[in-house]
Amino acid sequence: MKTSNKIPLVLAYSGGLDTSYCIKKMSQEGYDVHAIAVNTGGFDAQTQDQIQKKALELGAVHVEVIDALDRYYSRVIQYLIYGNVLKNNTYPLSVSAERIVQALELIAYAQKVGAQAIAHGSTGAGNDQVRFDLIFQVLAPEIEILTPIRDQQLSRQEEVDYLISQGIDWSWEKAQYSINAGLWGTSVGGSETLSSHKSLPEEAYPSQLTKKGSETLELQFEKGELKAVNGELLSPVAAIQKVQALAGPYAIGRDIHVGDTIVGIKGRVGFEAASALIIIKAHHLLEKHTLSKWQQFQKEQVGQLYGTLLHEGQYLDPVMRDMEAYLSQSQSQVSGTVYIQLHPYRFVLEGIRSENDLMNPEFGAYGEENAAWSAEEAKGFIKLLSVPNRIFQQVQKSKS
Amino acid sequence: MKTSNKIPLVLAYSGGLDTSYCIKKMSQEGYDVHAIAVNTGGFDAQTQDQIQKKALELGAVHVEVIDALDRYYSRVIQYLIYGNVLKNNTYPLSVSAERIVQALELIAYAQKVGAQAIAHGSTGAGNDQVRFDLIFQVLAPEIEILTPIRDQQLSRQEEVDYLISQGIDWSWEKAQYSINAGLWGTSVGGSETLSSHKSLPEEAYPSQLTKKGSETLELQFEKGELKAVNGELLSPVAAIQKVQALAGPYAIGRDIHVGDTIVGIKGRVGFEAASALIIIKAHHLLEKHTLSKWQQFQKEQVGQLYGTLLHEGQYLDPVMRDMEAYLSQSQSQVSGTVYIQLHPYRFVLEGIRSENDLMNPEFGAYGEENAAWSAEEAKGFIKLLSVPNRIFQQVQKSKS
Amino acid sequence: MKTSNKIPLVLAYSGGLDTSYCIKKMSQEGYDVHAIAVNTGGFDAQTQDQIQKKALELGAVHVEVIDALDRYYSRVIQYLIYGNVLKNNTYPLSVSAERIVQALELIAYAQKVGAQAIAHGSTGAGNDQVRFDLIFQVLAPEIEILTPIRDQQLSRQEEVDYLISQGIDWSWEKAQYSINAGLWGTSVGGSETLSSHKSLPEEAYPSQLTKKGSETLELQFEKGELKAVNGELLSPVAAIQKVQALAGPYAIGRDIHVGDTIVGIKGRVGFEAASALIIIKAHHLLEKHTLSKWQQFQKEQVGQLYGTLLHEGQYLDPVMRDMEAYLSQSQSQVSGTVYIQLHPYRFVLEGIRSENDLMNPEFGAYGEENAAWSAEEAKGFIKLLSVPNRIFQQVQKSKS
Amino acid sequence: MKTSNKIPLVLAYSGGLDTSYCIKKMSQEGYDVHAIAVNTGGFDAQTQDQIQKKALELGAVHVEVIDALDRYYSRVIQYLIYGNVLKNNTYPLSVSAERIVQALELIAYAQKVGAQAIAHGSTGAGNDQVRFDLIFQVLAPEIEILTPIRDQQLSRQEEVDYLISQGIDWSWEKAQYSINAGLWGTSVGGSETLSSHKSLPEEAYPSQLTKKGSETLELQFEKGELKAVNGELLSPVAAIQKVQALAGPYAIGRDIHVGDTIVGIKGRVGFEAASALIIIKAHHLLEKHTLSKWQQFQKEQVGQLYGTLLHEGQYLDPVMRDMEAYLSQSQSQVSGTVYIQLHPYRFVLEGIRSENDLMNPEFGAYGEENAAWSAEEAKGFIKLLSVPNRIFQQVQKSKS
Repeated sequence: MKTSNKIPLVLAYSGGLDTSYCIKKMSQEGYDVHAIAVNTGGFDAQTQDQIQKKALELGAVHVEVIDALDRYYSRVIQYLIYGNVLKNNTYPLSVSAERIVQALELIAYAQKVGAQAIAHGSTGAGNDQVRFDLIFQVLAPEIEILTPIRDQQLSRQEEVDYLISQGIDWSWEKAQYSINAGLWGTSVGGSETLSSHKSLPEEAYPSQLTKKGSETLELQFEKGELKAVNGELLSPVAAIQKVQALAGPYAIGRDIHVGDTIVGIKGRVGFEAASALIIIKAHHLLEKHTLSKWQQFQKEQVGQLYGTLLHEGQYLDPVMRDMEAYLSQSQSQVSGTVYIQLHPYRFVLEGIRSENDLMNPEFGAYGEENAAWSAEEAKGFIKLLSVPNRIFQQVQKSKS
Repeated sequence: MKTSNKIPLVLAYSGGLDTSYCIKKMSQEGYDVHAIAVNTGGFDAQTQDQIQKKALELGAVHVEVIDALDRYYSRVIQYLIYGNVLKNNTYPLSVSAERIVQALELIAYAQKVGAQAIAHGSTGAGNDQVRFDLIFQVLAPEIEILTPIRDQQLSRQEEVDYLISQGIDWSWEKAQYSINAGLWGTSVGGSETLSSHKSLPEEAYPSQLTKKGSETLELQFEKGELKAVNGELLSPVAAIQKVQALAGPYAIGRDIHVGDTIVGIKGRVGFEAASALIIIKAHHLLEKHTLSKWQQFQKEQVGQLYGTLLHEGQYLDPVMRDMEAYLSQSQSQVSGTVYIQLHPYRFVLEGIRSENDLMNPEFGAYGEENAAWSAEEAKGFIKLLSVPNRIFQQVQKSKS
Repeated sequence: MKTSNKIPLVLAYSGGLDTSYCIKKMSQEGYDVHAIAVNTGGFDAQTQDQIQKKALELGAVHVEVIDALDRYYSRVIQYLIYGNVLKNNTYPLSVSAERIVQALELIAYAQKVGAQAIAHGSTGAGNDQVRFDLIFQVLAPEIEILTPIRDQQLSRQEEVDYLISQGIDWSWEKAQYSINAGLWGTSVGGSETLSSHKSLPEEAYPSQLTKKGSETLELQFEKGELKAVNGELLSPVAAIQKVQALAGPYAIGRDIHVGDTIVGIKGRVGFEAASALIIIKAHHLLEKHTLSKWQQFQKEQVGQLYGTLLHEGQYLDPVMRDMEAYLSQSQSQVSGTVYIQLHPYRFVLEGIRSENDLMNPEFGAYGEENAAWSAEEAKGFIKLLSVPNRIFQQVQKSKS
Repeated sequence: MKTSNKIPLVLAYSGGLDTSYCIKKMSQEGYDVHAIAVNTGGFDAQTQDQIQKKALELGAVHVEVIDALDRYYSRVIQYLIYGNVLKNNTYPLSVSAERIVQALELIAYAQKVGAQAIAHGSTGAGNDQVRFDLIFQVLAPEIEILTPIRDQQLSRQEEVDYLISQGIDWSWEKAQYSINAGLWGTSVGGSETLSSHKSLPEEAYPSQLTKKGSETLELQFEKGELKAVNGELLSPVAAIQKVQALAGPYAIGRDIHVGDTIVGIKGRVGFEAASALIIIKAHHLLEKHTLSKWQQFQKEQVGQLYGTLLHEGQYLDPVMRDMEAYLSQSQSQVSGTVYIQLHPYRFVLEGIRSENDLMNPEFGAYGEENAAWSAEEAKGFIKLLSVPNRIFQQVQKSKS
């Protein structure tokens, strides 16, 4: 790491035009720019190399790609699985969750190196600025937040021109679809998602259908945690990646999320998240067999609030720790294997096996005779269940 | 209608072995049996004819198939759509909802004809007995409830033998899969659904895949109500049937519901409900565009409680009327058209058009520059959003 | 009303120093100031006279005290009663509710007179600015919002000096306690409420103990609405005032609210609200007798969200209309008389009489023998209630 | 303990007529009766002596008063405090909570001594039978439950006559008020509570007003747990008793609970619970200062469900363990001292001191100028807060 008498600044670097502009511009303005990319699953080795090269060439005093995959899982994804969190019943919160973890890593790095400022490339229009700013301000109020892109509102061409004027003449084609890839899913934005009525074309999605027919997938959970895929014991991160590798070629898990942003407007974004959707739905099915009715009722409420607050960048609110304690405790019985069938564009949950399965045929099968109670006992049960409404009707009648 | 000096009794008649046994047996025991079938979408003309013939031959003094389709919609299905009700995120409550409406029709009929008793053929093991008994007892505590099947716990053979002894020698094959068809879906039970790990085979489902390729479906809603299908104005019931007719041949809407019964055990039942699932998901998407964040938050909670209480037979609790008022009011903006693509075994929501669409590009598109607020205003927003957690962190630090 | 070629501006006028400064200052700056005071219960005839005189002397082109008492009730208080709304189980939201209604009246007046700007005297530190700004911006985005006090952050002395320089040399003593009086309660702020540990002294409260002994109060509700006090039929507003007149001399209804402000800090404010607390607690008791368990469960949730969103200025969110529909429907049975005993500093709910009372001794008294079910039926009821947990325990044991 | 070849049976013994009858009767019928009283705070030394003597004289083979106070606290009361649980905003669930703990103690004893049967003296009309039966059946389905009082429905005279016939000629006056005393409160039933409109007379309450004037009480909490009273370090149970000893002579904490019983009817019961009410209200105030807005929001929901399920005897549902984990975690910051003023019939919360107090004057006092944000930032905040409703209004206007 070079040293200088310039002001140390940490920049959330992605390799794209906006943050490349930031490196050059802020270096010129008297900052020692530490270009930090936090890998939450979107950067392969080649991308990481490019990031390193670009940043140094642009004048960063230091560049680093932080591998945050394990912490991404243990800090957030774990609880999204326990809570079966799908925002608006659809979206696994892929991007929202990544930003939180990236912000946590960036501010920790900034504190470690004694940075006086921290910068990100988000605009003033979306959710990401909120997630970054919130976490930065709360955890390190003494570090100044700089956001040149938000403040200057330059066009792409102005940024390119500036870089050329500084001797950086690279090609910066704007892709037709803006893609954000990560461990828990990949978002896809395009002209279609700016309308309310158009769907994304087949080719907009990163994973294309390459497998035919169908295949079976077995997911083994232990206390809510995915421990094995098709019998192979794996770390949580590796297990998620394995499910994606198996299901991606079926083009499973595509959908469009329509949601309310933190800044108050509604937004629409495509995504594909085969692994997240399969794991959540499989986990939820296992819970239907292993949790009591009241556990399911209450978990639903907790999971939804957890997802909403995470989405809105409130990860540091202490209520999140309370809910994490709840969700962890709720998983004590959620162990077993879930059987899934993968097909092109869809998957089917076949069933589960669990030693904690509460659907116990010895107790009497649904709709069939059973030994757990008699007809008379059933009648007594219903008789007492009817008491409140019988009284209500009697009171109504007595008035008329 | 014949008259006699026997005791007038209304029997919920389905044409099956259990309730056929009831007609004969109860007629012998001094009752004038009114065999009443309530059609909630499961009886076609031929089935209705058979029901009539069988009941009379078995000795019913009166037989009637009550057409309850419109009231099924207006009393229950309407609110299941408004509330996007899917029990455990899966099941449109097809059977639960039917039983409620059947019970309401039966007890109204019984009161109209001055019946002294009312009978149904449910066993003591499942949910249906609860739904029937609850509604009967609450609305007409003066009418005795008789349940020979629950009380006598005869085997099918014993019932057949009794009927033969009474001169009724019909064939009563037990189907491999027990099917309950209705307007809002068809349930499928079989040996597989008595296990936790087996799925139903293709052939168990009533609708088989007969269409190839894909087709577009347009659903037009007005204040939450489905008004037109592919541009054709239809009554709500006809619209639901039309969607089923279009989507059924794609074998859409199959799944297995795992749930907690009212009697406390867990149960598993297959179903196909193409129309219900497509309408609910389309309606929900339209709401994501036309309702505020808080409207969606609160509706979710109301819809879930509505579904749970309906499932548990609590339709007559006055809270259901309160929630119906809520759900109706919440639909004032839910108008527009939803575009859907039907494929074999699945459907895709393409998008919506609505004059109430709150995703207004004039206000600024998600992730893009916009004119509704400035960068400074956004920073002020985030600054104040961070206040509570900044104070929390400051207090934490001041202690250490 | 005078006319001029100056810019028409509506100012929320209270008669205090801040808004008096605003009249003079803005008049000087080229505005025709319409000084509007909205009476939500805090202005008696004398105060209204003073307001009128002061405003004209300060240079307002028009001054008006709008009587908003009936609309205060019908727009907000009504639902606070239906929902038994006490923020954090303590505070009847007196001030929050007033500000909403004042903002609605002010912006309606501004639109009526074609004002180009609207001004209020709130600072940048509290809730009131949010409530005013939100409602103004949402209902009339074309009208500019001016807030000299928030923007200029003058000291009281600077304001006084300015007024003196303009020939207004009145006495502006700062009261030891800042009081906000209104129909639904009176808030009291002082140096004590800026600490966490001090309570307000006796003399800080507007109502002092002047009655001794105790007296009975009878409140008669019809569909949730207070219709008569001690047998006297009254309009809702008059009924609320009557209860206050009777209970105020007992110094009932004092407490300190500790809450989270919209701007994120915690605040503490004293209040006295005898009428609001007595009416809400009496209404709640009547509901315990006339609503089903599920109605109470769900109302609690709705009432709390209604109160929270009202408190946070979200009155115009359409979810408020949905909840109002819910709360109105929920009151259909809430009719009857509540008997209350007033004592110095406290009141006791004695009981109720209602033809809708569901605590029906004919059905069996709590803890005594009854005829509504037999011992065997009760045992059957409990047997089935125990099923889920019996299965759970059995599964646990089978593993060990 | 005597041994015999009779069937070992555990009886929940209270010393009253009903369960005294049970000892004699069941001893005669071939049972070795273990008369077990579980002390949850209602039995003083003298009462315990009497229980012992009576039981032996009536023929019990063994009698024991189990001291369950500490376990009463750790199993239930602890969470009732954490959750601020007041059923219907009024009742600290004194009796409900006791029965749960008594049932747990009784069945554990029964299992320990190898009892083949367990008996209680509840009737078929109330909640207690449900709580006892549920816990007995779930934890020890192999032990038969016997309930002579529920089954035989004898009058008091019949029981007395039977005892006389067996040589037991004691006086069994029925008290005018039925009292159930315990650590967490004392319930009071009488002819008044069988009506809806009468309150209990002064003399019906066990604690009578004997102190005049007022005094200060200081409660010190650590992570939600009451650790010291007026500076004296005490065990939780001793602390609760100490508060009762101080507040009881002020006749604080009287009220009437109107609630829905598990068996479906509404019931009304008087109670006095000075200690429970003071502790809960003090704890709640401390939480208002030390928890975030979202923590309070979510705790409210969890606390209410916890109370409702406890009340309904569902203590063994695993969801209770999940909620206990939640409530425990939520208390990590709830430390500090609460200042209370005791007066005849009422108490006043004066304020709190806590090093975790989030009402931090350094950050800006409510309603005053502050340094945490500027006027411009506040305006930006409100501007973005208004976005959703501005869009909603714009869409409404564009249609008209």
